[in-house]
Amino acid sequence: VKKMKFKTLEWKQNALHLTDQRVLPNQIRVMRCRDEKDCWKAIREMVVRGAPAIGVTAAYGVYLGVRSFKGLNRERFKTRFKVVCNYLRRARPTARNLFSAIESMQTVFEKAEKLGVEQIKRLLLREARRLEKEDQKLCEGIGRHGARLVRSGFTIMTHCNAGALATAGIGTALSVVYTALWSGKRVEVVATETRPFMQGARLTTWELAKNGVPVTMICDSAVGHMLSLGTIDMVVVGADRIAANGDVANKIGTYNIACLAREHGVPFYVAAPSTTFDASIPSGKQIEIEMRPVSEITRPYGKRLISKGVKLLNPAFDVTPAKLISGIITEKGVFKPPFRKSLLKWES
Amino acid sequence: VKKMKFKTLEWKQNALHLTDQRVLPNQIRVMRCRDEKDCWKAIREMVVRGAPAIGVTAAYGVYLGVRSFKGLNRERFKTRFKVVCNYLRRARPTARNLFSAIESMQTVFEKAEKLGVEQIKRLLLREARRLEKEDQKLCEGIGRHGARLVRSGFTIMTHCNAGALATAGIGTALSVVYTALWSGKRVEVVATETRPFMQGARLTTWELAKNGVPVTMICDSAVGHMLSLGTIDMVVVGADRIAANGDVANKIGTYNIACLAREHGVPFYVAAPSTTFDASIPSGKQIEIEMRPVSEITRPYGKRLISKGVKLLNPAFDVTPAKLISGIITEKGVFKPPFRKSLLKWES
Repeated sequence: VKKMKFKTLEWKQNALHLTDQRVLPNQIRVMRCRDEKDCWKAIREMVVRGAPAIGVTAAYGVYLGVRSFKGLNRERFKTRFKVVCNYLRRARPTARNLFSAIESMQTVFEKAEKLGVEQIKRLLLREARRLEKEDQKLCEGIGRHGARLVRSGFTIMTHCNAGALATAGIGTALSVVYTALWSGKRVEVVATETRPFMQGARLTTWELAKNGVPVTMICDSAVGHMLSLGTIDMVVVGADRIAANGDVANKIGTYNIACLAREHGVPFYVAAPSTTFDASIPSGKQIEIEMRPVSEITRPYGKRLISKGVKLLNPAFDVTPAKLISGIITEKGVFKPPFRKSLLKWES
Repeated sequence: VKKMKFKTLEWKQNALHLTDQRVLPNQIRVMRCRDEKDCWKAIREMVVRGAPAIGVTAAYGVYLGVRSFKGLNRERFKTRFKVVCNYLRRARPTARNLFSAIESMQTVFEKAEKLGVEQIKRLLLREARRLEKEDQKLCEGIGRHGARLVRSGFTIMTHCNAGALATAGIGTALSVVYTALWSGKRVEVVATETRPFMQGARLTTWELAKNGVPVTMICDSAVGHMLSLGTIDMVVVGADRIAANGDVANKIGTYNIACLAREHGVPFYVAAPSTTFDASIPSGKQIEIEMRPVSEITRPYGKRLISKGVKLLNPAFDVTPAKLISGIITEKGVFKPPFRKSLLKWES
């Protein structure tokens, strides 16, 4: 595994440093998060995005939120911990990893409840650091399993950014690309622009170009045309939440691609760590789809484009039904349909 | 038929006046075309766009190109006429109406060949004016036939701008909406943003709002999600060229919507005048797809968003296969599949 030429998130000097993904690639700006409010804001306003990176940020956020607690009263400390967890949980609704990271922090807290306040704080920081390291491992595992599906010469279509910038490691969908490349295969990527936040245009093309992967960008509207040309060998995207039946919530536009990929017989893969799986949700219908501020689409670059009186809808995610998915690439292997059966293994 | 509150194109003071669609809705700027070069530039740079409006502009362009011819030599005049026609034909490659309008001008020229130069000039201007009037009639005919498909309470999805701004009249796809509305039906529209040129965001929402039609805008990437909500009753789009088998070239992204509409059992209609039909082209495979400058996607609002070294593809159109089309709404009625058979009537 090679090192990325940038840091999505970094714990140093007792703070979480995040590369501000709202201004990439035109500016490299780092946001220093010193408390849970900074972390909440970073998640909500998409300074950091991508389900795994959101999870790790939330974990550090939990620690940063209780770090400043003064005193030795364990009951009051516990109350503060709960308030911080509940607060961070409300930063964004869709990504499973936000919730699973906070659950991990809660498990550590419960086990340590009898210890002193300062000791619990240390254990919480240790857990956040462990989750960061774990995410790096998960990314590598996804890459190892996913790269086996890639033949030399493949052109892979991806959507949004499920790369290093979306994780603490080398990415989910893009980990498949990097791992294939590093093992000597020729790989090219077709990245979609990904309106409205332009994660594909700004982030995916940037990190792939920085890492020597040939990349071509198209508008979201050109997905069908591109697939009809017959030059795309597979689609690989990330996931924000995976329901028990294999339905996948991911960046708005993913479902469009899945439907068109099937029309053209192009395999459609989802790459995600097991922390994205949500067994408590029977199907995609129960996944809450975040509606983002319409300002993201009315004034994409500061200038209002849309007339007054026009209604706007800006859903941030959509649900791709399991029937359109060829496989889910995880650190535990590639799960194949029927997912209801194969995904149960994740639980163990 | 009500009047629009704006003029897409207007012949006055011996020049063609075009509302500059690149700067709508933030600015109302009019471009005055005085010769064929102005018209060519207006078409190429999308001051005017929409297949029918391009056709009418080209017809006026032919007249403006020969108007300044000095002398009485008919042979030289004929040569000039041919040069102007060939020049305008190369303004953009995909819209059929550009070519059919120039063909109409050629037919008039051939019939008038024995007349004097000044007389031919007058006949050419008369033909351009006739084509403009005819386009208004075609739009009304499309609206009449199409509105019968619309029930009160319908929500209609459309893509790009196939409205009054795309024609000399009340539009093609949007003529269906206007005519239904004016006949007393409740209609709402969901318009796609239509990257990269934002025709949906800038033009469709503007003209619908101006004409009292409730309109909601979504990003192109949200089409699948929107259709999955079950609130869209039909899709109506325009067309730039229709092949003999019923395959339709239209704004990039149309094919995405057609594929997703079928997945959700939502009827998908194309609305276009018969001048869009190209019997000489057996199927969509033979339609030339224009590739537009990548600057439209690298710096959508003046600021470069994409890293150097990233390749870009910017196809302006895609082809929707006939099998995904529920019907083609024309001024002659609604053609149903199999189109190879029903479209033959257009030829007569």
